[in-house]
Amino acid sequence: MSERQARRGGGRDSKRAARQVSQTKQAAFIERRIPYFELLDEASLALIEDNADTLLEEIGIDFRDDPEALSLLKAGGADIQGERVRFPRGLCRSIIQATAPKEFIQHARNPERSTVIGGRRMVLAPAYGSPFVRDLDKGRRYASIEDFRNFVKLAYMSPGLHHSGGTVCEPVDLPVNKRHFDMIYSHLKYSDKPFMGSVTHHSRAQDTVDMAKIVFGEAFATNNCVTTSLINANSPMTYDDTMLGALKVYARNMQATVISPFILSGAMSPVTVVGTATQILAEALAGMAFAQLVRPGAPVVFGTFSSAVSMQSGAPTFGGPEPSLVMYTVAALARRLGVPFRSGGGLCASKLADAQAAYEAANTLQTAALAGVNFMLHTAGWLEGGLVMGYEKFMMDVDQANMLSVLLGGVDMSENGQALEAFREVGPGKHFLGAAHTQRNFETAFYRSTLADNNSFEQWTEEGGQDMAQRANTQWKRVLADYELPPMDPAIDEALLEFIAKRKADFPDKDY
Amino acid sequence: MSERQARRGGGRDSKRAARQVSQTKQAAFIERRIPYFELLDEASLALIEDNADTLLEEIGIDFRDDPEALSLLKAGGADIQGERVRFPRGLCRSIIQATAPKEFIQHARNPERSTVIGGRRMVLAPAYGSPFVRDLDKGRRYASIEDFRNFVKLAYMSPGLHHSGGTVCEPVDLPVNKRHFDMIYSHLKYSDKPFMGSVTHHSRAQDTVDMAKIVFGEAFATNNCVTTSLINANSPMTYDDTMLGALKVYARNMQATVISPFILSGAMSPVTVVGTATQILAEALAGMAFAQLVRPGAPVVFGTFSSAVSMQSGAPTFGGPEPSLVMYTVAALARRLGVPFRSGGGLCASKLADAQAAYEAANTLQTAALAGVNFMLHTAGWLEGGLVMGYEKFMMDVDQANMLSVLLGGVDMSENGQALEAFREVGPGKHFLGAAHTQRNFETAFYRSTLADNNSFEQWTEEGGQDMAQRANTQWKRVLADYELPPMDPAIDEALLEFIAKRKADFPDKDY
Repeated sequence: MSERQARRGGGRDSKRAARQVSQTKQAAFIERRIPYFELLDEASLALIEDNADTLLEEIGIDFRDDPEALSLLKAGGADIQGERVRFPRGLCRSIIQATAPKEFIQHARNPERSTVIGGRRMVLAPAYGSPFVRDLDKGRRYASIEDFRNFVKLAYMSPGLHHSGGTVCEPVDLPVNKRHFDMIYSHLKYSDKPFMGSVTHHSRAQDTVDMAKIVFGEAFATNNCVTTSLINANSPMTYDDTMLGALKVYARNMQATVISPFILSGAMSPVTVVGTATQILAEALAGMAFAQLVRPGAPVVFGTFSSAVSMQSGAPTFGGPEPSLVMYTVAALARRLGVPFRSGGGLCASKLADAQAAYEAANTLQTAALAGVNFMLHTAGWLEGGLVMGYEKFMMDVDQANMLSVLLGGVDMSENGQALEAFREVGPGKHFLGAAHTQRNFETAFYRSTLADNNSFEQWTEEGGQDMAQRANTQWKRVLADYELPPMDPAIDEALLEFIAKRKADFPDKDY
Repeated sequence: MSERQARRGGGRDSKRAARQVSQTKQAAFIERRIPYFELLDEASLALIEDNADTLLEEIGIDFRDDPEALSLLKAGGADIQGERVRFPRGLCRSIIQATAPKEFIQHARNPERSTVIGGRRMVLAPAYGSPFVRDLDKGRRYASIEDFRNFVKLAYMSPGLHHSGGTVCEPVDLPVNKRHFDMIYSHLKYSDKPFMGSVTHHSRAQDTVDMAKIVFGEAFATNNCVTTSLINANSPMTYDDTMLGALKVYARNMQATVISPFILSGAMSPVTVVGTATQILAEALAGMAFAQLVRPGAPVVFGTFSSAVSMQSGAPTFGGPEPSLVMYTVAALARRLGVPFRSGGGLCASKLADAQAAYEAANTLQTAALAGVNFMLHTAGWLEGGLVMGYEKFMMDVDQANMLSVLLGGVDMSENGQALEAFREVGPGKHFLGAAHTQRNFETAFYRSTLADNNSFEQWTEEGGQDMAQRANTQWKRVLADYELPPMDPAIDEALLEFIAKRKADFPDKDY
């Protein structure tokens, strides 16, 4: 690079950095100011609800390897035969509607980051569960605790994300029985946003609660929601003891659970949109009602993970029309039930952060926004059907997340929004660039993408002719370089580390 | 490649080819079976309509260099001062609603391809207007007539596209004053889908009409819509003589025109969503009313091309939230007016068919579908703000277009859709793959992407680890290789070529 280029590059680099700084402000959630897209009419939704009751009454749900769960359900009015639980029509709905909150606060250790899940709000969290990560430099590899911390930091630094998430990747370099300590600690240490708890064993849920007590105080942490945790059904129509065990710990401690049917249509559910939606409703009704029987008033979120499948390979597919139709349907069912709804995300099947990843992710994100998802897990980073957390994909999805806050913000109908003064100033054949109205508004009028290149071909070529993934690569590195720890009371930090050290000592030093 | 790999590759190649064959059937249009997403309420829409009337009454529209237009407008009730035309409140609306059809048939030379524009239908056409093309092998280059023919062929071969479009790229290797002959001929020869006419000069519009007469017969071609052509306003608030000249030729011959405000918000309109939508309405009202004054009953489409801008570079930006809010708004205004609506497309600013291109295109396509666009120009191929027609991007967007037909098809609420029999057959903890219901439905249950890779990382790596653009590259080449001419009456073909030869001889042999 010549000296002139270096000088120009320096200027251009800082200009580029300035361009890339997001003007999205950190908020606790997005306030929705637009209608919901209502796909189905009242009669169709009522029919689905009726059919879900038929499933619950006639076929039922298996609650496996958990006698305590069965007796709670029996006491709640369900019919128990072996592990098969059948619910009289309307029972789950009435149990839920009696005590489950329509919306709830999840407190963060920084009160400014405490969020509200439900109602007319949308809360965005990173992707969850990937055992692998990928970036442009090192390619695809097993995720480590260092990657975990990186993604917690990236989420912390992304104003468009409101939540730190949970298993932002699976740190497989740590033993299974102990990694949750480092994961929960990482959320608490490297972020001050609300986070999700461990669910892989009831004792790990308890450890999560105990660590939350250290941070929030025991009384506060067990009477207010300070964690939201993902409880997957074992679709179809089954809850297993691991998930139930974690659910009980959280519900008893008034912590929120996201009761999530997990569906690859055609495999874990019927192939049709209505069949899938009906099953999702039945499973979620049972799980959410169960949580209320464990602890009336424990917050629950109606979760849904639902994809189509490739009938050739059996692999899940994303971004297509059928999962969108399912999401619109189930969102309406959740609204009618009166509980917060979780679904969506930047879902894709692509191995790379390429056009496939983006078409698929965008289709799902747009759907989630219009459908009225309240809590969106998997917003950022998802690749390869959920197997991989992508660094570049994360940054791209965060850009999209920022846009959702503007889309959901709706339309300004004020005098300023109507802009009549601008027309009176400018007139036919002129341009509006210098108009007073434009000058007053231009800085906030349009969302500025953190990653899109809008320049001419010539300028883009001069700047290296990069694709979006390459720009995202530069960006995540810069964000991590700019990262600074949020403040934390050293006494709390020390108490957490003591707790972790003590608990880790309880475990044999091998992976199982 | 080893012999074993070659054998495996051979099998896999044909399997891959089979996978890639679209199961989307060629239709004349998409029938919409879902609601519209109604962003604004009645009062807000009425306010915008009122403000548009204020613009038309108080400020007016310039109709430049066309005295005939001015006297038609004057006779129609407008106030003329110089070239400034002011419309009494409600005049344009009443002129339009008196005679403009709510929907109309555009005939194709193959009657099976004749389409309907308006009402509850969506018609998809390729991108329009790019002077450059791009593909992975040859990169970016000026478009040629060979590229033009390629895109006509690709659109012909894509069941998800219903319309051949117009200037699918600008063949700059041909002289400006004569290229329209080859362009129109290419649509007629290489496709049998409906197409768009030339608008760059009134004589070229006349040539289009004359060529249509050869194909459809003179009486038919001048009393039925056989072309739909793009008439851009010279926003803000101006129509110029070139566009008016073409408009008059088409309207007089009962041909459809898409009256399109062309807006980069902040430059050609105020920066706000409502300001932009109001101006779009005012301009379109004036242009569509004018077309009715030229020829009552001539079909008109309420067009909109609207983007945000980068306030740093002044370049148009795509796929962001504000243009979506504008599109939802204007779609509702067009519905209230009772005319077909054109907008949307796979719009993007990206130079490449990368993730940026896809996020941006997908956001716009989803919005167009939910908003209720009737005629979507730019569906496939758009890159670099419209400067480039991309071969790979075309194929990717066509895959998305196929999906829109499924999304708009809505939800099957029948017994089969409800799938209760499947639940009764399968039960908790089992899977649905072998269920009778699944077997009966799986082949049509899910849209199968023509380009997405849904395979495992291992299989994808084995197959070359390609990104979506690389697969699209293989695909467009295969589609062109498989292309076969639709049949055409040799007498008509001959007559067209004679006409073209004669008319070309009228022009001096140089470019101007």
